[in-house]
Amino acid sequence: MSNLGNPGMRSWIDAAPQSDFPIQNIPFGICSTPGMPPHPCTRIGDQVISLHALAEGGLLNGIGMDAAVFAAPVLNPLMQYGKAGVRRLRERLMDLLRHDNGELRDRADLVRKAVLPIASATMHLPVEVGDYTDFYSSREHATNVGIMFRGPENALMPNWLHLPVGYHGRSSSIVVSGTPIRRPMGQMRPKPDEPPVFGPSKQLDIEVETGFITFAGKPLGERITAGEAEDRIFGMVLFNDWSARDIQSWEYVPLGPFLGKNFGSSMSPWIVTLDALEPFRTAGPVQEPTPLPYLQTHGAHSFDIRLEAALKTNTGVETVICRTNFKHLYWSMAQQLAHHTVNGCNVRAGDLMASGTISGPDPGSYGSLLELTWRGTKPLALQDGSTRNFLEDGDTVVIRGHAENGGLRIGFGEVSGQVLPAA
Amino acid sequence: MSNLGNPGMRSWIDAAPQSDFPIQNIPFGICSTPGMPPHPCTRIGDQVISLHALAEGGLLNGIGMDAAVFAAPVLNPLMQYGKAGVRRLRERLMDLLRHDNGELRDRADLVRKAVLPIASATMHLPVEVGDYTDFYSSREHATNVGIMFRGPENALMPNWLHLPVGYHGRSSSIVVSGTPIRRPMGQMRPKPDEPPVFGPSKQLDIEVETGFITFAGKPLGERITAGEAEDRIFGMVLFNDWSARDIQSWEYVPLGPFLGKNFGSSMSPWIVTLDALEPFRTAGPVQEPTPLPYLQTHGAHSFDIRLEAALKTNTGVETVICRTNFKHLYWSMAQQLAHHTVNGCNVRAGDLMASGTISGPDPGSYGSLLELTWRGTKPLALQDGSTRNFLEDGDTVVIRGHAENGGLRIGFGEVSGQVLPAA
Repeated sequence: MSNLGNPGMRSWIDAAPQSDFPIQNIPFGICSTPGMPPHPCTRIGDQVISLHALAEGGLLNGIGMDAAVFAAPVLNPLMQYGKAGVRRLRERLMDLLRHDNGELRDRADLVRKAVLPIASATMHLPVEVGDYTDFYSSREHATNVGIMFRGPENALMPNWLHLPVGYHGRSSSIVVSGTPIRRPMGQMRPKPDEPPVFGPSKQLDIEVETGFITFAGKPLGERITAGEAEDRIFGMVLFNDWSARDIQSWEYVPLGPFLGKNFGSSMSPWIVTLDALEPFRTAGPVQEPTPLPYLQTHGAHSFDIRLEAALKTNTGVETVICRTNFKHLYWSMAQQLAHHTVNGCNVRAGDLMASGTISGPDPGSYGSLLELTWRGTKPLALQDGSTRNFLEDGDTVVIRGHAENGGLRIGFGEVSGQVLPAA
Repeated sequence: MSNLGNPGMRSWIDAAPQSDFPIQNIPFGICSTPGMPPHPCTRIGDQVISLHALAEGGLLNGIGMDAAVFAAPVLNPLMQYGKAGVRRLRERLMDLLRHDNGELRDRADLVRKAVLPIASATMHLPVEVGDYTDFYSSREHATNVGIMFRGPENALMPNWLHLPVGYHGRSSSIVVSGTPIRRPMGQMRPKPDEPPVFGPSKQLDIEVETGFITFAGKPLGERITAGEAEDRIFGMVLFNDWSARDIQSWEYVPLGPFLGKNFGSSMSPWIVTLDALEPFRTAGPVQEPTPLPYLQTHGAHSFDIRLEAALKTNTGVETVICRTNFKHLYWSMAQQLAHHTVNGCNVRAGDLMASGTISGPDPGSYGSLLELTWRGTKPLALQDGSTRNFLEDGDTVVIRGHAENGGLRIGFGEVSGQVLPAA
């Protein structure tokens, strides 16, 4: 991968130094632009580049991909070419966009069609998600929740240090960044000695997460080993797993979260490849006890990705409420995918596996209001003078993420959503 | 619906008196036949009838459906026409297949193409399942499991009588009847004082269930009321929710079943419409306490459907191990769908919602080996002289289901699967 994104490379499309999208990123998304229905694109700085237009201009020949994948309304067809195919495509795009390559730059008509300001594009959900799995892989998060609900002695469940706990979520209600989220109605029991009641959730929360999108895995009955897992991962996104704590706490025993989660989950529009994140690879936390052999990996399998969540009230004033980092996660993506398939469960191109709330060691790094306000006992003070235990109608939550070192910055942009009043 | 399937109606295609598929049934499935890729079909007796051939023969004009839906490899496109569309199609099919109608019967060339023995057809998964939800709606099953794991005083969790408990399952590993199921490998902790181990599941089990397939629901954020829920249901299937109890019991706290379930789930190939089941409508169990208003329905919303599970060892000898009935379920399909969407969760055409294990009041009606052997304490005696606590490699499980009254029988056929040794 030495030719993929060396730090000195520049594009003939400008990107500000603090942009998440230099030529070293080349993420994938789905955009529609005036007169063009949803189709694959990439981005440099504040410009989207239409892969459909590039393909029509003959600039994506020779990489072994059917042109139809560049006209599809989701990235799933493109993903059928797997890691090697996407790598060829990214290399070709970097090549075309490099400052000293005139193939595209010098064709003004094609540039007019292919390169458009992000402000003129509408971003869509980049993949059709077949199955969505949510893990629970932050030790700090699991410990915090455990202390709140079971006390410090029994904070972590006995299985937690032995396997990446996870559960299946709902695919149909995953929406792209910017889609408003309606406060859910539901059944809850606020007073344990009284019957349950029905109404709008009063404990609407966020979960700061990332997710990874898979390439096609193996047939049902075969496993993906931890060693080969990263080759089955297309890339990462930011993810907000909106949660209604009052609905969740009443319903979730014994089969897990259901209506407390499935009213909506928000995904960032750009899938950032693991190749782009390679310079930020780092070791995750030490794992003690040593996991069983099927969960063991060699080398570094985490990534140093800075994450923050901001809450903007309807005064328009924004407060950063959480600063955390992907590298805090105890279980790596490779371990998550190996565990998920060790029983023969099959994975399809476009499946989403989310991290679970990513909390760090200090209180300012907790990835949910539940933890930030310690179950409502420490209200959060916002910049506009108001306080929050949980989200109010009109609040907008923005999660941002990027990796940075030695002058290279690779980012995700953001995933945002505004809370609408209950129906 | 008075014209849909009156008991005296006969077809010019023979169906034995004990067939699950008289002309009053007209279920929908996907078959391939020599020279014909997977496409929609129906069935009378032991003959499949190709809807693609009927459409090509011009016999499905005038019901307002695009001919392309009859050539699709899944029923999802057809289902976009909703309850009214499917009703028009079933009426037209009954009309064409009625003993006194010669439109198809008298066109020998077309009959040769359209009507084929079931033995010459391969049945496929009838729908592309978007999201799969598994409920837990049998009071007897939940009570049995509760007694085994928590004692008789705390058998039912506090929420159970107030809402249809459910969780999200895995869509990718749902397979059609006849597909072998590989015994899963996984992590479990057989001895609570020792570390977990990795190996093949030693507690492979079945769950006797039914499922319903939805039509498209409403946009994200809107609910389907209990009163309108049945209009959003296409039909029912038999379902075997294979379960690895040792993997499940180690992993499931606090987020629910995951690898103990998602290695494979089996669905019967024929979707039987609620219209076909209408003569068997019956009241479900009395619900006390009265559910919250959003879960209340008027009239009868259960169905009298007899279910049985048989275990065939590799001696070839079959033993019926469970006889139960769908009408035992505490929560109706209408209540399940209303609950699932009350928070605004959206439902798509082809989503599957399974019942959870359907156990009846007496021990012979328990729908899982876990209950039938009371957690392995009462091994099950089989006809071939062997005994079982859980499934052994080579065992085949067949679940059958039908409704019957006054000479009319409407059935599902079967869902079967053989256990393969672990990989």
